[in-house]
Amino acid sequence: MRNIPEYMVIVEKGLADLHFPDRPKELYDPLRYILTLGGKRMRPVLLLMAHELFGGKAENALPQAIAIELFHNFSLIHDDIMDNAPLRRGKKTVHEKWNSNVGILSGDAMLVIAYQQMSKCAADKLPEVVRVFNRTAIEVCEGQQYDMEFETRDDVSIEEYINMIALKTSVLLGGALEIGAILANANKKDAEHLNEFGKNLGIAFQLQDDLLDAYGDPDKFGKKVGGDIVANKKTYLVLKALKDADANQNKELQQLIQSGTIPEETKIRQVLELFNALSIPEKTRMAMDEYYAKSIHHLNAISLDASKKAPLEKLAESLMVREH
Amino acid sequence: MRNIPEYMVIVEKGLADLHFPDRPKELYDPLRYILTLGGKRMRPVLLLMAHELFGGKAENALPQAIAIELFHNFSLIHDDIMDNAPLRRGKKTVHEKWNSNVGILSGDAMLVIAYQQMSKCAADKLPEVVRVFNRTAIEVCEGQQYDMEFETRDDVSIEEYINMIALKTSVLLGGALEIGAILANANKKDAEHLNEFGKNLGIAFQLQDDLLDAYGDPDKFGKKVGGDIVANKKTYLVLKALKDADANQNKELQQLIQSGTIPEETKIRQVLELFNALSIPEKTRMAMDEYYAKSIHHLNAISLDASKKAPLEKLAESLMVREH
Repeated sequence: MRNIPEYMVIVEKGLADLHFPDRPKELYDPLRYILTLGGKRMRPVLLLMAHELFGGKAENALPQAIAIELFHNFSLIHDDIMDNAPLRRGKKTVHEKWNSNVGILSGDAMLVIAYQQMSKCAADKLPEVVRVFNRTAIEVCEGQQYDMEFETRDDVSIEEYINMIALKTSVLLGGALEIGAILANANKKDAEHLNEFGKNLGIAFQLQDDLLDAYGDPDKFGKKVGGDIVANKKTYLVLKALKDADANQNKELQQLIQSGTIPEETKIRQVLELFNALSIPEKTRMAMDEYYAKSIHHLNAISLDASKKAPLEKLAESLMVREH
Repeated sequence: MRNIPEYMVIVEKGLADLHFPDRPKELYDPLRYILTLGGKRMRPVLLLMAHELFGGKAENALPQAIAIELFHNFSLIHDDIMDNAPLRRGKKTVHEKWNSNVGILSGDAMLVIAYQQMSKCAADKLPEVVRVFNRTAIEVCEGQQYDMEFETRDDVSIEEYINMIALKTSVLLGGALEIGAILANANKKDAEHLNEFGKNLGIAFQLQDDLLDAYGDPDKFGKKVGGDIVANKKTYLVLKALKDADANQNKELQQLIQSGTIPEETKIRQVLELFNALSIPEKTRMAMDEYYAKSIHHLNAISLDASKKAPLEKLAESLMVREH
């Protein structure tokens, strides 16, 4: 297996080689635009790594890697409309730069082009590749719907939350890995284990993201620490705190969440004090570790030499920040 | 070949047999809702007719017929948001009954489910079926984009207009027929001729729709006669009139279009007088006849006995209203 920067170069070249038609301009310009905003290209890189893990050559799975990145960007365009987000990677979102209609329709076109790229594989692989891609795509839609629904519900369970983050973000990592494996003739069991590796790793990563938002080192964490608390986001930390709190603590937390008058810094401090009293950081870490362990368990279950799988295990480790 | 009502029954049964998951409710309820609003199911019926034309059995192409209807409904949900349309078949549109976000996301899910249904075919047919479906889907997106773009442009040519209506509505008729043919082992040329039959018939039908909107019998035409004129829609009639008008007529027509003060009935009457002076109804009928003739030419070119193709020719004839 090559190293990650090499895979990234392959992906960037694949994206640069995509040629969208010139017209209609407002259909294709937004696609060119969002793809130049950059990003880590984690999903297509995972697909290529999975492909080479089972003896394939990255270049032969490039259309499918590009397809996964196009699908991801389709979901970003539409999610940004739904979330009313003005910025994406520091630049205007598509619906801000153009308008909502342009965002809806160019997103639709990007989804169709993702299918076009996904279909560029050997005929004998197509049914399985399309099956996994379809299933993954519908799950991502379900995840986004649950995410929106949870904003207006105050009885979201931890189980429901984990299911939501799994659908919204993790299944696409798993699907990318599974498709890469299928294209390299991996057997069904191995391909599914690799999917579960990615899915559980994604859940662990998302839980870590929740934790870092509240407890991260401001110098290392990209976003403002405490942002989720200020925005009243229903993270794992809040849901776990509400579940484990006694009656008084629960009341206090509800008041902090509902109050619109407490200054931001005070709110963050008081919520963190409650989290600490309830050992929420430790409990979140335990949940993270559990999903990380599941992830590694599935990686280990793949019928290949451990040495071959080492780069994926190293990648998984590197995603888990240990210093906070 | 069976008769059209029989194909409609098969399609309705196929739609009724679709089982969307119960949750998330706001993702799947809109899909159940829009599918119960009815409609002529023309696209899936054409797919099944094409399939039986080449010796297939309708039931074997049912998932693909359903896929075409799902795709059509996906485009209705998203177009209705973009066009800000409150009603669809006399009932609230999805974004009116729920909200825009629900419309965007449930539309996305419907597109993915269309791909799921489309993929339910013999493995050896899948590459070709998906190729035609992808191409058709991207063309429909392009058509909708041109349609929106034309609203704010005043230099739309007749050629551009025909291209727009072909993309927005006719390629899906052609694509449905071609996929039905492919699934019944039609040769590539025949399948493409059948596509062209549907595409040109669709253009003729759309031109007729433009004509009937201005000249139809109010008792027979479903919509209010003159509605396009009142809404300043850039129909074939208007574009042809602007093209053929002399300087004075052009100025008069522009004034009628731009004025916001002329009463509706006066505006309709004066525009129709101009159309009549320029022989626009006759010219529109000529364009219609031209596309209709192209359509029949492609039907005739298919390497099957004329008797087998008779039901499709009869269907085409029945779509062309002759009495106005």
